[in-house]
Amino acid sequence: MKIAGFSFAAVEAGIRYPNKLDLGLIYSDVPCVTAGVFTTNQVKAAPLHLDLERLKNGWAQAILVNSGCANACTGAEGMATARESGRLLAEALAINENLVQLASTGVIGEQLNIAAIAEHLPALVAGRAPDNFDRVARAIMTTDTVPKTARVHLDIAGRRVTIVGMAKGAGMIMPNMATMLSFIMTDARIDQAELHQTLVEAADRSFNRITIDGDTSTNDMVLVMASGTAENQVLNRERPEELLAFSLALQALCRDLARQIVADGEGVSKTVTIRVSGVDTDAAAEQIARTVANSNLVKTAFFGEDANWGRIIAAMGRAGVAFDPERVDIAFDGVVMVKDGLGLGREVEAAATQVLREKSFTVAIDLHQGSGRAEVLTGDFSIDYVKINADYRS
Amino acid sequence: MKIAGFSFAAVEAGIRYPNKLDLGLIYSDVPCVTAGVFTTNQVKAAPLHLDLERLKNGWAQAILVNSGCANACTGAEGMATARESGRLLAEALAINENLVQLASTGVIGEQLNIAAIAEHLPALVAGRAPDNFDRVARAIMTTDTVPKTARVHLDIAGRRVTIVGMAKGAGMIMPNMATMLSFIMTDARIDQAELHQTLVEAADRSFNRITIDGDTSTNDMVLVMASGTAENQVLNRERPEELLAFSLALQALCRDLARQIVADGEGVSKTVTIRVSGVDTDAAAEQIARTVANSNLVKTAFFGEDANWGRIIAAMGRAGVAFDPERVDIAFDGVVMVKDGLGLGREVEAAATQVLREKSFTVAIDLHQGSGRAEVLTGDFSIDYVKINADYRS
Repeated sequence: MKIAGFSFAAVEAGIRYPNKLDLGLIYSDVPCVTAGVFTTNQVKAAPLHLDLERLKNGWAQAILVNSGCANACTGAEGMATARESGRLLAEALAINENLVQLASTGVIGEQLNIAAIAEHLPALVAGRAPDNFDRVARAIMTTDTVPKTARVHLDIAGRRVTIVGMAKGAGMIMPNMATMLSFIMTDARIDQAELHQTLVEAADRSFNRITIDGDTSTNDMVLVMASGTAENQVLNRERPEELLAFSLALQALCRDLARQIVADGEGVSKTVTIRVSGVDTDAAAEQIARTVANSNLVKTAFFGEDANWGRIIAAMGRAGVAFDPERVDIAFDGVVMVKDGLGLGREVEAAATQVLREKSFTVAIDLHQGSGRAEVLTGDFSIDYVKINADYRS
Repeated sequence: MKIAGFSFAAVEAGIRYPNKLDLGLIYSDVPCVTAGVFTTNQVKAAPLHLDLERLKNGWAQAILVNSGCANACTGAEGMATARESGRLLAEALAINENLVQLASTGVIGEQLNIAAIAEHLPALVAGRAPDNFDRVARAIMTTDTVPKTARVHLDIAGRRVTIVGMAKGAGMIMPNMATMLSFIMTDARIDQAELHQTLVEAADRSFNRITIDGDTSTNDMVLVMASGTAENQVLNRERPEELLAFSLALQALCRDLARQIVADGEGVSKTVTIRVSGVDTDAAAEQIARTVANSNLVKTAFFGEDANWGRIIAAMGRAGVAFDPERVDIAFDGVVMVKDGLGLGREVEAAATQVLREKSFTVAIDLHQGSGRAEVLTGDFSIDYVKINADYRS
């Protein structure tokens, strides 16, 4: 994958493990209008504090990202390390250090190995090439088993615009008004306010609607850089239709990446869409969908391919939303298993069990009391999740 | 275990499985002042609706309990079945059916086998004996591996008072203002309002402070029956000191049973107390403690005996409570691992890892910003939890 005007590089810096791409660079030939959304966790990693400050002016030209160390809960030393790594990169690239965005992912509570970064930075900068996109997508992986990338094209009044993106994340995933790591590049010309707004909306309908384990990371972020080299007429409120087209394209790309994250979630063998409708408000529908999507009992039943709808309705009942259990319908990919709060028996269960054997299916829950609706994407919960997380770090 | 004035019986009724005690009876020679707390889940099992209605008068003489079927999400038929089982028992015991409390535990969404209950009820009633307490404690087990029972004695102005209790529960356990199944018997003489109040307080400090998997059942209940046969002067507000003594004894018993539930939680190999202090309010402290206690990443790290405090602080950060990460201290059984938000390094980690090898330990978290505090008891999260819940029902 590539996109005109951007170059990429990744090296094995030995930040935590040998023989693992762990330091990545995304560079644009020109400064980009840039927007970001960041974790809502009270505890934010050091680089995020710098990024938030720098993004106030709305521009960036480079992203430096490492895996192996989150640089979170590292105090003043961690802040100094993050700042120093950005300064070194800006110097090597001969750009203003405020145009560098920083991202880290890995173990929380350990200091970032700045010596390793300083040592490998020259090779990183020298190694930039337009077709190294996939190497950076691999450099940001931790427990991910595959890199996640996506691309969309759209036409803005006769100019072809491209958006490409990469993402990582396999555990500690329940993004909340933000997400895991994702970097998105586009050649679109767009005002910063509109870029930020479209990113917030796209993240809210994609990364913010997935969960793997209900845990929210200290390092989540999505950055989108728009270089403007497509030379389309600038996207802003004066061109609402074209802005909408861009917004929907960005959303499609984010949903694609978000789905890849769940599918590669720690120990995940199935992706399941929880679709809740008929609730008083969208917010209440989301609350129910999230509670079901995070229930360990529901997720282990998915793993066991057991159409155990009792666990679904029990989870709904603790979501903090009032509803009438005797009006609840539940269907698995069109197989209605529960009607008016009652199970429809063994034959239907056999059909539902067939659905659960699929790699991907939808649980549709209708409460028949309003027009609020929401969808959350989740995975099953397997023995491998426990194995991975009992062993991670050691 | 036994308590004067009460008799017990349990039989194999074949409600779901053969060769399993699954129908139990608790009977008092005299009507008892009785109080109960029930699940706050929006979805309540059929027997709970009857119990709540009947407890308005504050008296009961018998509890009929079955395992193998929750009789939840069973509609009008489930209500009729619950009512019929109570009617049959009342007839056989020659008591008013409003004095029968009903409890069910097992699979949600299937109808209760009333024919099996009707067939085995005569043997159940005939089999009553003072020393069958432990058989009932076994009859209420589902995925529990051991029965949970406890006893306390206290002296009320020269009269010896006894409280005994049993409990079940190993999964779908995060009681919320209520709990799993627990039946408590005492010979104390006590006013109903005070009995109810002491039960609410005791449950709030015991069963409501445990979690196994963050899921809240549709069938949770605690009942306490007070026969008054100890012939102590009646406990009420005119005797605050004696009431307090009773209240603390009941609390001790409930905490004992609650700890047994966590220790026997599905797949649990360790019990861990999460103690949070230095927060603005007790409620905020509880919110943080619960979020840590329910984090799958924290619980899998306990299973892996990995003193991964980064996961603890990440979970704290998503609890919805504002705090300064740079004032957080975290200790494992007195081994301070984190001071002012920073880890204290490898040597301390080695000591903390030793603590994690114990069967039971405390994680003490201090936020140094207020006097609010709370404790929640949790377990680790193991491969066996997933195995048990992927297989349960099949």
